[in-house]
Amino acid sequence: MKNIQLILFGIGNVGGTLIDQIIAQKEKLRQQHIDLQFSAILNSSNVFFPSHNLTSSWRASFEENSMSYTFNDVLKHIQKIEDKIIIAIDATASDEVVNKYETLIEAGCHLVSANKIANTISYDFYIRLRKKLSLHQRQFEYETNVGAGLPVIETVKKLHQSGDEITKVRGVFSGSLSYLFNRFSSEEVPFSQLIKDAKVNGYTEPDPRDDLSGKDVGRKLLILARELQLEKEFKDVQIQSLIPPHLNGESTVAQFEERMDELDVLYGEEKSTSTDKVLRYIGELDVSKEALSVSLQNEHTGSAIGQLQGADNVVEIYTKDYDQHPLVIKGAGAGGAVTARGVFNDILKVVSQC
Amino acid sequence: MKNIQLILFGIGNVGGTLIDQIIAQKEKLRQQHIDLQFSAILNSSNVFFPSHNLTSSWRASFEENSMSYTFNDVLKHIQKIEDKIIIAIDATASDEVVNKYETLIEAGCHLVSANKIANTISYDFYIRLRKKLSLHQRQFEYETNVGAGLPVIETVKKLHQSGDEITKVRGVFSGSLSYLFNRFSSEEVPFSQLIKDAKVNGYTEPDPRDDLSGKDVGRKLLILARELQLEKEFKDVQIQSLIPPHLNGESTVAQFEERMDELDVLYGEEKSTSTDKVLRYIGELDVSKEALSVSLQNEHTGSAIGQLQGADNVVEIYTKDYDQHPLVIKGAGAGGAVTARGVFNDILKVVSQC
Ligand SMILES: NC(=O)c1ccc[n+]([C@@H]2O[C@H](COP(=O)([O-])OP(=O)(O)OC[C@H]3O[C@@H](n4cnc5c(N)ncnc54)[C@H](OP(=O)(O)O)[C@@H]3O)[C@@H](O)[C@H]2O)c1
Ligand SMILES: NC(=O)c1ccc[n+]([C@@H]2O[C@H](COP(=O)([O-])OP(=O)(O)OC[C@H]3O[C@@H](n4cnc5c(N)ncnc54)[C@H](OP(=O)(O)O)[C@@H]3O)[C@@H](O)[C@H]2O)c1
Repeated sequence: MKNIQLILFGIGNVGGTLIDQIIAQKEKLRQQHIDLQFSAILNSSNVFFPSHNLTSSWRASFEENSMSYTFNDVLKHIQKIEDKIIIAIDATASDEVVNKYETLIEAGCHLVSANKIANTISYDFYIRLRKKLSLHQRQFEYETNVGAGLPVIETVKKLHQSGDEITKVRGVFSGSLSYLFNRFSSEEVPFSQLIKDAKVNGYTEPDPRDDLSGKDVGRKLLILARELQLEKEFKDVQIQSLIPPHLNGESTVAQFEERMDELDVLYGEEKSTSTDKVLRYIGELDVSKEALSVSLQNEHTGSAIGQLQGADNVVEIYTKDYDQHPLVIKGAGAGGAVTARGVFNDILKVVSQC
Repeated sequence: MKNIQLILFGIGNVGGTLIDQIIAQKEKLRQQHIDLQFSAILNSSNVFFPSHNLTSSWRASFEENSMSYTFNDVLKHIQKIEDKIIIAIDATASDEVVNKYETLIEAGCHLVSANKIANTISYDFYIRLRKKLSLHQRQFEYETNVGAGLPVIETVKKLHQSGDEITKVRGVFSGSLSYLFNRFSSEEVPFSQLIKDAKVNGYTEPDPRDDLSGKDVGRKLLILARELQLEKEFKDVQIQSLIPPHLNGESTVAQFEERMDELDVLYGEEKSTSTDKVLRYIGELDVSKEALSVSLQNEHTGSAIGQLQGADNVVEIYTKDYDQHPLVIKGAGAGGAVTARGVFNDILKVVSQC
């Protein structure tokens, strides 16, 4: 039996769903000689060190038994774990947690992360983290950083490691912006109304400008570029923001939402009048030019990108071996269930390599 | 440095390309502390035990230095390898090689295979092989059995292991039949001419009936079903053969090819007259019904399957988490380069888990 101790940072949408999924799958994994135990679960203020297996009522247990903490408390707890495989899971969007990665590695933890920050801050940190991992023989998996549960990073990594030459990666990398433009091109609804719908459906960040700025898509491209050993920084990504400068000031979310209908005129004009073209918000990594760009483009309705539905992501990988047509991966690229499943698979990948 | 010894059965289209790819990538892998060495390369009659690293002129070296062999010679050679990771690679379509898998495992080899036979003969053998692997703590990877280099088996395996409920897998699983029907639906060319073109392009087996019978697609479905723990045999797959019984007799390839134009009338009638439907040869695994079927179907031109081009494969994976739209993987599903790359990735996967 492989006994694995999990330290989970973040019990929101992704982290909470992950706990539910692992509890549901626990018995089947034990039959495969894998025992996953939650050793600590944390949110931004409290920690809970379960003394028994978590059950479906773990939320109530957390309410009852958790206490406030400093990172040192968690570290001491980890240092007491003996002879076991320890995996620290980052299901937050916090840079505070990222700042602890190196300490966690030194304490013997492997890392699994849904949080994009560690891979998108400075290239210096990116390299330092990998050196630390290699020194301590620890693993770091982060498939959900691009396309949630879709096997995008893994596929790019594998093709690259085995020597296929990736020439271009292109696609729709944002669930919320996919939803926005898929509906915008097929329905007669004002742009601002679609943003509201996307928010109601849980597709956008609390501040919709985080999506509309294109920064999230830019980060995903940066992560893929670095997988291909391109030494790029976030500032190297050319991003066409969907928010005109005069709406992008220091205003609050509420103030922005009040003026959102000003976007209707703008995007009404952008809307293609031809029936065989649709607007899509595209991320593109041109490997030979080392160019990363995010922009609004007119796509053929017949193409995989033009055919997109719902809040799906689609990623086209162009390589030398796949010369005629790209390798294409498509499906839901956001949402608690598929993202948590992706994190779960990363955990199992670490386990299989231990 | 991880020193890996490779025993390669089959140096045809896939095996030969694999050698070229590994030679080209050798230095980069050494920088990652992985040293892949060919310890033996074999075709059906001869073996070559290279004493030095293979170079791009390995074909000439094989001609010059290879000799006839019995399997025992190979086994003795393997048994002399000390303190190293040994991977036996099956790039043949031979059952003779499959019959040696258990002996190879006992001799300490991990297995990587492009050959579908081991996974599609009796379920008894399937289980026995896995028990043997588990007993000797050896790995067996075979991603190229379905969709060549596309990450189909891996994705199905991962979703299943982490507890997502796969309800259906559906798609076009044959490069040659994809090519046939993609052109048939968009061009005015007789069916028999397309079979000839497919053969000239290297998409079909030497006897085109091996593709047209649907057996190859049936085998791929069976492999996926068994990944989901369905105890199925090949006879359980419902296959609609594309060859009418009177052309499927004991005739030779030449005799069949002479009468192939009889298919033109048949498929001329099947051809959809509606402009929004196209014929596709579909494999479908309905998990709850435990039903595996291969048949000719009319598909919407707007769907991922209807949009297929060239000799591409497409696989739609329907699950509980991906509830609205399936996870879709598309791209070249045959060809020496992409298949060898898939085998190469399987080798690296074994290495990463050692
Ligand atoms: N949701 C998706 O579809 C999706 C897809 C791909 C990737 N991701 C990534 O997954 C991560 C989590 O997303 P989410 O949707 O689950 O967010 P969420 O619902 O907002 O949950 C965030 C969790 O992190 C906790 N947290 C924040 N700062 C922390 C700290 N310093 N230490 C410990 N815990 C802290 C929060 O605790 P409090 O409640 O106390 O603040 C909360 O439990 C993000 O990085 C996101 O980008 C999400
Ligand atoms: N080609 C593709 O696109 C593709 C895609 C997915 C999977 N695959 C699978 O990959 C495998 C290889 O395909 P391929 O296209 O490379 O076939 P191929 O070009 O016909 O090559 C087959 C090789 O296997 C050798 N061989 C046959 N019997 C053997 C035996 N008993 N011991 C040792 N070597 C033996 C042959 O040697 P001789 O020359 O002496 O006969 C030849 O070198 C097949 O199982 C195929 O189904 C192929």
